[in-house]
Amino acid sequence: MESRKFFRFLFILLCGALVLFFTWIHIPYAPPPSTTEFLDCATNSPWCTSRNRFLSKKPPTINILKKPPRQTRHHHESDVPHHPLDPLTIRELNKVRTILSSHHLFKSSPFALHSVVLEEPDKPLVLRWRKGDPMLSRKAAVVARVSGQSHVLTVDIDTSEVNVQETNPLSGYPTMTIEDMTSSTWAPLSNGDFNRTIIERGVDLKDLACLPISLGWYGAREENRRLIKVQCYSMEGTANFYMRPIEGLTVLLDLDTKQVVEIADKGKTIPIPKAANTDYRYSAQGVDQQKKLINPISIEQPKGPSFTVEDEHMVKWANWEFHLKPDPRAGVIISRARVQDPDTGEVRNVMYKGLTSELFVPYMDPTDAWYFKTYMDAGEYGFGLQAMPLDPLNDCPRNAYYMDGVFAAGDGSPYVRSNMICVFESYAGDIGWRHAESPITGMGIREVRPKVTLVVRMAASVANYDYIVDWEFQTDGLIRIKVGLSGILMVKGTSYVNMNQVPGQENLYGTLLSENVIGVIHDHFITFYLDMDIDGSDNSFVKVNLQRKQTSPGESPRRSYLKATRNVAKTEKDAQIQLKLYEPSEFHVINPTKKTRVGNPVGYKVVPGGTAASLLDHDDPPQKRGAFTNNQIWVTPYNRTEEWAGGLYVYQSQGEDTLAVWSERDRPIENKDIVVWYTLGFHHIPCQEDFPIMPTVSSSFDLKPVNFFESNPILRFPPNLEEDLPVCKPSDSA
Amino acid sequence: MESRKFFRFLFILLCGALVLFFTWIHIPYAPPPSTTEFLDCATNSPWCTSRNRFLSKKPPTINILKKPPRQTRHHHESDVPHHPLDPLTIRELNKVRTILSSHHLFKSSPFALHSVVLEEPDKPLVLRWRKGDPMLSRKAAVVARVSGQSHVLTVDIDTSEVNVQETNPLSGYPTMTIEDMTSSTWAPLSNGDFNRTIIERGVDLKDLACLPISLGWYGAREENRRLIKVQCYSMEGTANFYMRPIEGLTVLLDLDTKQVVEIADKGKTIPIPKAANTDYRYSAQGVDQQKKLINPISIEQPKGPSFTVEDEHMVKWANWEFHLKPDPRAGVIISRARVQDPDTGEVRNVMYKGLTSELFVPYMDPTDAWYFKTYMDAGEYGFGLQAMPLDPLNDCPRNAYYMDGVFAAGDGSPYVRSNMICVFESYAGDIGWRHAESPITGMGIREVRPKVTLVVRMAASVANYDYIVDWEFQTDGLIRIKVGLSGILMVKGTSYVNMNQVPGQENLYGTLLSENVIGVIHDHFITFYLDMDIDGSDNSFVKVNLQRKQTSPGESPRRSYLKATRNVAKTEKDAQIQLKLYEPSEFHVINPTKKTRVGNPVGYKVVPGGTAASLLDHDDPPQKRGAFTNNQIWVTPYNRTEEWAGGLYVYQSQGEDTLAVWSERDRPIENKDIVVWYTLGFHHIPCQEDFPIMPTVSSSFDLKPVNFFESNPILRFPPNLEEDLPVCKPSDSA
Repeated sequence: MESRKFFRFLFILLCGALVLFFTWIHIPYAPPPSTTEFLDCATNSPWCTSRNRFLSKKPPTINILKKPPRQTRHHHESDVPHHPLDPLTIRELNKVRTILSSHHLFKSSPFALHSVVLEEPDKPLVLRWRKGDPMLSRKAAVVARVSGQSHVLTVDIDTSEVNVQETNPLSGYPTMTIEDMTSSTWAPLSNGDFNRTIIERGVDLKDLACLPISLGWYGAREENRRLIKVQCYSMEGTANFYMRPIEGLTVLLDLDTKQVVEIADKGKTIPIPKAANTDYRYSAQGVDQQKKLINPISIEQPKGPSFTVEDEHMVKWANWEFHLKPDPRAGVIISRARVQDPDTGEVRNVMYKGLTSELFVPYMDPTDAWYFKTYMDAGEYGFGLQAMPLDPLNDCPRNAYYMDGVFAAGDGSPYVRSNMICVFESYAGDIGWRHAESPITGMGIREVRPKVTLVVRMAASVANYDYIVDWEFQTDGLIRIKVGLSGILMVKGTSYVNMNQVPGQENLYGTLLSENVIGVIHDHFITFYLDMDIDGSDNSFVKVNLQRKQTSPGESPRRSYLKATRNVAKTEKDAQIQLKLYEPSEFHVINPTKKTRVGNPVGYKVVPGGTAASLLDHDDPPQKRGAFTNNQIWVTPYNRTEEWAGGLYVYQSQGEDTLAVWSERDRPIENKDIVVWYTLGFHHIPCQEDFPIMPTVSSSFDLKPVNFFESNPILRFPPNLEEDLPVCKPSDSA
Repeated sequence: MESRKFFRFLFILLCGALVLFFTWIHIPYAPPPSTTEFLDCATNSPWCTSRNRFLSKKPPTINILKKPPRQTRHHHESDVPHHPLDPLTIRELNKVRTILSSHHLFKSSPFALHSVVLEEPDKPLVLRWRKGDPMLSRKAAVVARVSGQSHVLTVDIDTSEVNVQETNPLSGYPTMTIEDMTSSTWAPLSNGDFNRTIIERGVDLKDLACLPISLGWYGAREENRRLIKVQCYSMEGTANFYMRPIEGLTVLLDLDTKQVVEIADKGKTIPIPKAANTDYRYSAQGVDQQKKLINPISIEQPKGPSFTVEDEHMVKWANWEFHLKPDPRAGVIISRARVQDPDTGEVRNVMYKGLTSELFVPYMDPTDAWYFKTYMDAGEYGFGLQAMPLDPLNDCPRNAYYMDGVFAAGDGSPYVRSNMICVFESYAGDIGWRHAESPITGMGIREVRPKVTLVVRMAASVANYDYIVDWEFQTDGLIRIKVGLSGILMVKGTSYVNMNQVPGQENLYGTLLSENVIGVIHDHFITFYLDMDIDGSDNSFVKVNLQRKQTSPGESPRRSYLKATRNVAKTEKDAQIQLKLYEPSEFHVINPTKKTRVGNPVGYKVVPGGTAASLLDHDDPPQKRGAFTNNQIWVTPYNRTEEWAGGLYVYQSQGEDTLAVWSERDRPIENKDIVVWYTLGFHHIPCQEDFPIMPTVSSSFDLKPVNFFESNPILRFPPNLEEDLPVCKPSDSA
């Protein structure tokens, strides 16, 4: 018996040691990078400079085939701000860190900085500022957690003054740090029950890949404690572990202590789907199958691109200029977008600030391991934090300019996210405007102008999903905001391998995509913050309703026609818009004090597109938190604290601080500085074509000049002439 | 008194002579081309061959600056059909003309051939036919008018047999011939009252430009007689006469006799808007203003395009192949669209035939000179007849392939519409699919594929408006059908020069665009005929409804989720679809007898986009005729006589032969050969940016594989590699 006990002890010890060993050696995700590495990035390691690396822990399989594109390296350690809206530089982030380290709040307690970004100067100051003026005072807005308490601080970088705001009384926690997320993925491995469960499922711990899943908020049980759920996958035989869920296994974890609170294990009978045909990497495809169906094709600009980026952040192209910066939460922030008037030469204000305010991604499966999947990617994960380096020639065409993000890690140390944004000119062969005289008139006229646009792009990989966000500027004054969805589905394991096994009444909550794999139905909502400033900050929102009007008897052989009626929104509730196909409107943001020569108010209109509405019950907890999707359009008076549609603290929030709550105050919005909010929506019923990786699906909406210009602003743009176009040769004959 | 009479006589004579002289010398539109000219086109004149001319009567102002793009001339006189769906060749058209000339119907009476096109062989024959098989019997479908009567005839080209169908008992007339349209524009000049009116309006007859305007149908007064309305403009000082309406002057003309029936002249107090700033031609812009804001940019393919066009009409590209032909009514007809399965190599049927079936463009002004403007551009004017030669490098990028139309004139003689369709590969810098592993997992994966598509384009200039129709094929199996609107607005003269003159309650029916110019509100509906054949002809239409489902108490912390329910449409009325944002559905065309490996029916879905609904009263005469726009989607059983949504004879029709009427029969459509109809819609409230020419506005919808493939069909497509891309130089340094 003694020896039996001893062997049992030895066995357990050995198991434990093995687990720890594999955990340490084989976990596919990196442990959180050390501060030193972050600092390296910020200072002198070429590893962390822009446009010069393909971020990877393993050698990339495909990129080794490539000659690296022409690159200019940019070291950020000596960056200085040139514009009041420029993001914090490495020096400034370091200064903030130094200032905070001596602040009493951070002296004794462990802390984490969840956000360190520029506190933008007041709008009037920015609007008055001109290049050459002294730089406005530089401040950092910091969101920190100290001893379980969230704080918002303002750090004056020049004076070292720290201003601690009152503690937010509302529910919710700040955006997770990268360290929160990565440590959550391996924290369960310190729990023996968890490890046993994994092994019981037949998964080698070395093949384990886990994801940190924000758990939303579903009542008292999940309050007053920062929690996360972790679900895991087998990466045996594939890089695409997302297709191999260990279904029904959910670990509830304390995000602060990293202790396992609860393990739910309800899918033991569900097999882990096979690895075959899940790997999407080029290197994993059979070489014989790599038949090139398409000859090389490229957007070429032999005289170079037509845009410039001045002082790192001011983009100037054709008739446009705007300030562009990366942001850890929004991803991309466009500021001070202005367009030149072709008649007067004046550079006119269009938009003070535009950004991706929040995403809401509810999955449509109410069962245990799925009900809580109602992501809010910007506020929970950081849409910019998840934006990875773009792949030159594939994410963006030749001649793209790449901009790096400079962000702060959880300890405040700066690091560089290289190639996070690209800027390029696009030409798809499309037509800007045209007219040919028809055979009816027989006049010899044919005038056509090609359509060239400027695209600002980022791609965020929020774990499985990839969001491509484009801000596309057209010479005719239109701004198109486009979101593309690609990446990998979040799938559910099932014991079914064919639909003929599924009883008629059973709800799969999705589509059987492959043997044992269900693609669960879900929605995507992406809500944009658009601080429009049409020729000045004070604007009005006008609904131009198109309504059928019946003619009076004898008035006309026609019985009906459409009449446009302008309705100026007085208060916020007038501007809560649900789109209706049979009650159409145009949505104008106008400057009521400025008119065109013939007397129309100058304006821009929001042109909806990509509409899908959230159909969840308004009292459903996730919909309360995502209540900013209750309408497709909202208009609020400008308020610098109302920028994040789901609230400042989204994580585990209860929805007391959303756009829907602010708008209910019904403040006046006529002839005020107003902000327009637009939500792009997608219903996604997965199909087999989405397996194992999804072809991009895109939707967009437009901001379009409407009586903003006196006439067509691109009348004077020249057509393409043969002699201007490049002379090209295949590169292998060059 | 005698001398007074004599002088009066002399004066009238002189006036008449002057009028005739100016009419003959100065009318800006060409008289109808003579038969000889058409025959020339068909035989040996280089003027009429493809890709070699810029169609113009006057030397084009801009094209002389260009080196002509590399061109291969194509003479059509020796064309022979290679495929059963190939359009009639010049030889065949000549044969038809010869056959008809000896037919008793045409022997004694004056006649006009309104349409001579291929009578396509029965679908099963075409589906069975393989390359190398003997050509199927060639027949022509002819629509002719003889002595005021419309006839449909079938001419067997091989046997010379002519089959005269029964006279159509329904209302309406065939599509106008080009001769109908052009002669209508100058016919009023033979009327003294008309000429006097013009001169009274202060317009020199030499500056007159008139348009033939289909008058719809508004009751008994306009029945049993082929009529047209003519409205005129002054082209003094501008090529853009459309901006200078002689408002309120409407001539009612007999289309057969060209006699003026009635002249309405109600706008005498309305000035003709000024010519200044209306000309859009590059040559009319100040040279100093032609600043180049954008460097040359081009889609380059140094190894050439990846598609081939076999036997003149079979387009093969990447995984796609389809038959492409120009059509005088539809513009472009895509047939037998098939896509290769990456797993099996099989080339699978997707769509038997797709085309622009009809357009409906109602203007929203019920007053005398405007109420009747409710165009149906395909059935009234011929959408293909109005498609003008595309402008290389501007309408389509480099490396585009151009296809000519070979059509029959009113006397049956063939002529060539050169460069009517282009085919090109497009790359806009977009992403086909991507995934990068996020900072959460830290895995070194970033896989991105560029998105390259194949575009088939035509541009029809129906007088003022330009419609750009694109059929875009994607490698992932998606077909995007896009319509772009550009060209010139149909505007209304007004005495107002500023909005501050307009009384508050007055309805302008549009927007004051410039002094004395109103852009009248209007809609555009473009209805597509889509004979889907998903892996075979017998298909079903399935509405996949997404509906909120409430959870039961205790079932879940969630209160609600979305559930997808599949509803197979049994009969036509089940498939009359009005889209609803808050009651969303997917619309699948499936093959109920073919399933994927895991048991999903293979299918394609119609993905709506560009939706605008017609809001006119269903009993309004124009809406009766345009009743095919009462729903956004319809599904009918295949019937070869039901191809034109507004009816075969649209001109002056009363709406007894529309898609809406056919669908009301409520025929079975489950597991049948079915046709899907989709209507793209645009509401257009003009704005000043549309003056004097409109920046292109586009909308599109998609046909998208849904469980058609077993998995993502573009997994094996390679990424862009630097070494494959071209090496380019600016051309002036070449």
